[in-house]
This record gives sequence, structure tokens and C-alpha cells, in this order.
Amino acid sequence: MARAPDSPKRERITPIVPDLVNYTHDLIYGEIWERPGLSKRDRSLVTLAALIASYRPDQLNSHVGRALNNGVTKAEITEIITHCAFYCGWPAAMTAAHVAADVYEGKMSPR
Amino acid sequence: MARAPDSPKRERITPIVPDLVNYTHDLIYGEIWERPGLSKRDRSLVTLAALIASYRPDQLNSHVGRALNNGVTKAEITEIITHCAFYCGWPAAMTAAHVAADVYEGKMSPR
Amino acid sequence: MARAPDSPKRERITPIVPDLVNYTHDLIYGEIWERPGLSKRDRSLVTLAALIASYRPDQLNSHVGRALNNGVTKAEITEIITHCAFYCGWPAAMTAAHVAADVYEGKMSPR
Amino acid sequence: MARAPDSPKRERITPIVPDLVNYTHDLIYGEIWERPGLSKRDRSLVTLAALIASYRPDQLNSHVGRALNNGVTKAEITEIITHCAFYCGWPAAMTAAHVAADVYEGKMSPR
Amino acid sequence: MARAPDSPKRERITPIVPDLVNYTHDLIYGEIWERPGLSKRDRSLVTLAALIASYRPDQLNSHVGRALNNGVTKAEITEIITHCAFYCGWPAAMTAAHVAADVYEGKMSPR
Amino acid sequence: MARAPDSPKRERITPIVPDLVNYTHDLIYGEIWERPGLSKRDRSLVTLAALIASYRPDQLNSHVGRALNNGVTKAEITEIITHCAFYCGWPAAMTAAHVAADVYEGKMSPR
Repeated sequence: MARAPDSPKRERITPIVPDLVNYTHDLIYGEIWERPGLSKRDRSLVTLAALIASYRPDQLNSHVGRALNNGVTKAEITEIITHCAFYCGWPAAMTAAHVAADVYEGKMSPR
Repeated sequence: MARAPDSPKRERITPIVPDLVNYTHDLIYGEIWERPGLSKRDRSLVTLAALIASYRPDQLNSHVGRALNNGVTKAEITEIITHCAFYCGWPAAMTAAHVAADVYEGKMSPR
Repeated sequence: MARAPDSPKRERITPIVPDLVNYTHDLIYGEIWERPGLSKRDRSLVTLAALIASYRPDQLNSHVGRALNNGVTKAEITEIITHCAFYCGWPAAMTAAHVAADVYEGKMSPR
Repeated sequence: MARAPDSPKRERITPIVPDLVNYTHDLIYGEIWERPGLSKRDRSLVTLAALIASYRPDQLNSHVGRALNNGVTKAEITEIITHCAFYCGWPAAMTAAHVAADVYEGKMSPR
Repeated sequence: MARAPDSPKRERITPIVPDLVNYTHDLIYGEIWERPGLSKRDRSLVTLAALIASYRPDQLNSHVGRALNNGVTKAEITEIITHCAFYCGWPAAMTAAHVAADVYEGKMSPR
Repeated sequence: MARAPDSPKRERITPIVPDLVNYTHDLIYGEIWERPGLSKRDRSLVTLAALIASYRPDQLNSHVGRALNNGVTKAEITEIITHCAFYCGWPAAMTAAHVAADVYEGKMSPR
């Protein structure tokens, strides 16, 4: 079964929410991301848009990297952010662009 | 130039926000959706996820129909809603499923 | 002391949250809206923007009417909605325009 | 295993998101609500507050009834809404009070 | 009358919003938290859920500590966060777990 | 045509979302803020309220400074934050007060 990639952030919170971390492994990455009806690349598009829209910069940081691994290109991330500016408002898009800049510069979110 | 599809909802608000409706035609549908870096089908994935995440049932109603026109299948909409349950919370996904049911039954949102 | 204007909506919930309705009268309308540092017209600008941004159509309905009473013009409401489209996203602005249309047509929100 | 209570709303969307409805039964009601670390009554407090805060009136409707079944009193629901007015803003609390009024009058949300 | 506990964060903003800080003392802590209809422990459950749901990490930081003082156990905070993952989405719960980790490690939010 | 003021934050993301930065210059600052129907001072009131309500501290940081340039006084910013506490919830107002403190102390948000 697929597992979530190793993550120091996730290790930090394992003592606090152990079952939630188990669900992250077994349910989110083991089941949901593996469902056949939508490719991982398309799930990354959906996840990025959801995180931009709900203004979750900490998790967007992780999922920009994951999207690149799933075959989303940097040019497509540019388009997603630009598109979302109009549907989620300028501030959400601006923060998303900075999060992408962080990831491209190798800066991981501490949480 | 591409224009937004005719919409009685949009006509209703044209006297109230005429320039915003012009931007909807010329900027959102004429420019943003026509940008070459992301297909219309992918833009629909992004838009649906953003609308589910930010709980905008009125606009989700219109965009489910638009997504179908852009080549997103009903099976993919099922996956998007199921995926978003975990990233946006159960309530946002439940409402999205009802909005999809409305659209499939031909019920258009009044706004 | 200023009180909130009579409202059938508020009467409906008085048996459920009586002290919250008292706070609405004595604190929100009796104190906050009466503070001298910002005019009622300016407070209406702030309140409309906050309600559009947080997508609260029920309360936006009441406050569009209140804004008109406080001297905000319909042309200014048009500008506020158009401005907010870019800062809060298109869907929030579209719903706000429909709420304004409801108010101008005399349709009060049931809640 | 505990299952979600029968619900016409849930039946309506079963053809659209069948696996999500299965998760609602097996995971949400079968596992999460049954976890021993927090009583069902306390889980209802948490769920009501989360739904008020995130402005999800459709699901709040169902969960007010569920909270009453879990031993939360109407007087406590009054307190929760009043408390949340200050932490979530007046509009979220006002809508919550109307949703409670709907439930007490037997009006179920269509979605 | 009960007052808010001393807080360097609150002192910092007293010159900027003096009356809001007064309301925090006299209204929020002096009145709302002292209302008899719901115990302080239950109000902490409600407040934590509201803060997780609306993604307010700065204030969640303060209220995790306050919840512990009000008799909520760390095991219950674990359950609240795990429960909220499903109602508020995974990202809100992940951030909440990191905020709890901060508090347990003695790291206070600067704002 | 009016342009956005120079900003190191905006320069940082120009390589990532170049067209979005162009829209910021030409559309947001060149067109929207220049529309005659609402003064720049009033647009700042609206923008501040929208940013407080939607909890966008990064962008609020920039717009507090811009509001001061547009003629909004510090006393009025105090009133806006205090007013918004009741419409957007205490946590949003508290964070806004800290952002204002940051700006008054010359601390610019890194994003």
C-alpha cells in the first residue's frame, strides 16, 4: 500500500495525533490518492486549487512539491495561481505565489 | 474573442454591476479561460476544487455544467468531490454533491 | 440609546438566543455603530465589505438596506462589489450582486 | 458497527458519490464518532462549533438534531451560538440561530 | 469580575485598539466566559473547534493553553483535532496539531 | 496610467507569476483603484475590511500602509478593527491589530 512520503513535519506531530497520522498514511495516501478515477496529476491540480482557495499556506508548501513529483509543471502551477486570483481573490493568489517561490528556493514550511 | 455563455443569472445583475459583467465576458472568459498554459478541462478541475473549498454553491452550480462541457466526466466530478471531502471537510463535499445532483436534475441556481 | 431597527428575522430568533439579541441591540447597535471615530456611512462600507468577503448573504441582505439608509448610494454599492471581486474572488462578488438585486426588488432574506 | 442514521438527504446523493456515502457510514459514524476519547455529547459540541465557524448551514441543520440526541440541551445550544458570536462573528451566529429555529420547527434542510 | 489573564501579546496591541482590549477583559472574559449555561471546560471545547475550523493559528495557540487550564486534557485535544480533520479538512487539523506541539513545547505565538 | 508602488515582495514573485503581476499593475492599480465611483480613501476602507474578514495578514500588512497614504487615519484603522471584531470574530480582529502594530513599527511582511 502506498504511504505518505517521509516528512519531518509529520513526525513532529505523530506523538500528538498518532491516529490522524495513521489515517494520513493509510487513508489519504493509501486509499484516496490511489483511487483510479482521477490521475495523481489531476488530484494535484485539485489539491492545489483547494489549498489556494482555503488559504492553507503550510500545506500548500508540501503539495507544490508533491504536484511537481506528480507531473504538474511549474508553468502549470503559474497558470493555476493566475486562474485562482480571479476565483479566490488576489490575496490568496499572492500568498500562493510566495509559497511556490519558497518551494522553488528549497524552503520547507516548518508546519 | 470568447464570451461567457448566455446566462439569465448574469443578465439579472447586469444593471447593478455592468462593468463587472463586462469583466466577466472580456477578462474572465475572454482572457483567463483562453490562456494556453492550461486546458479548459484542467481549468474546470481547478475551478470546481476552488468553489468546493470556498463553499460557493451558487457558482458551483454553473461550473459543474461548464465542466461537463469542457470534457470533465461525471465520474471525475465524483472523484473531485470525494477527494475534496478530506481536504476541505465533509460538509463542503456534501453540499457539493447536492449541487451536482441539482445540476444533473436540471435545477439551475437562481443566483 | 440607539436600538437595532425592528426586524421580523430578529424577532424569530429572540426566544432561541435572547441575550444575543440583547447584545445586538445594546452592544452592536447601541454602542459599536454609535462610536464617534467613524461615520455610520463609513461603517456601512466596512460592514458590506466584511460580509461580501466572508460570504454571508443572509446578513448582507439586511446591511445593503441599512447602507442605503446610512447614505451609501447604489452607485457606491456597485463600486464596492466590483472592487471586492478582485480582493475576494468573483464568486463572492456575483453572490453579492444578486443579494443587492434582491434588496432593490424588495426581497428580504428569511434569515 | 454504528451507522449513520437514515437520511433522505444522504440517499439523494448516494448515486453521485457512493464511496463518500460509504465513508460517511463506516468511517465518520462507524469509527470517528465511536472513538472512546471524547463522549458523543462532547463531539457534538465540537461539531456544532466547527459548523457555525465555517458557516455550513446545511450540515448544521442535521447536527443540531443530532446534538439533541447526544444529550446537548437547547439551553446549551443557545450558549454555544452566543459564545460563537464573539469568536466567529455576529453573522455566523445569527445564521446559526435561524438554523436552530428551523430544526426546532421541524424544518429539515433539503441538502 | 473575571479578567483576561495577563498577556504580552495583548499588551502590545493595547495602544492600537484600547477599547477592543477593554472589551476583551470586560465582555469576553468578564461576561461571556462567565455565563453559567456552559462550563468553562465546555466553552474551551467550543472555542478550540471554532478556531481550528476558521484556521486562526495565532489565537489557537493561546486557547490550547487556556483549555488545559480549564480542565481539557491533552488526550481530549488529540480527539478534537482528529475529529475536526473530517469536518474542517485535513490541512486545518494538521496546522492545529503543530500549534498544539508549539504550546506543549512552550512556544507562544508572537501575535 | 497608475502603477502599483514598487514592492520587493512583488518583485520576488514576478518570475513565477509574471502575468499576474502585470494584472496587478495594469488592472488592479491601473484600472480598479482608479475608478471614479469611490474615492481611494473609501476603497482602502473596503479593502482593509475585506482583508480582515478573510484573514489575509500578509496582504493586510501592505494595505495598512497604503490606507495611511490614501488618507485613512490611524484612529480610523482602530475603529475598523474594533468594528470588525463583532462582524468577523475576535480572532480576526486580534490578528489585524498585530498586523497594524507591525506596520506602525516598520515591519513589512515577507510575503
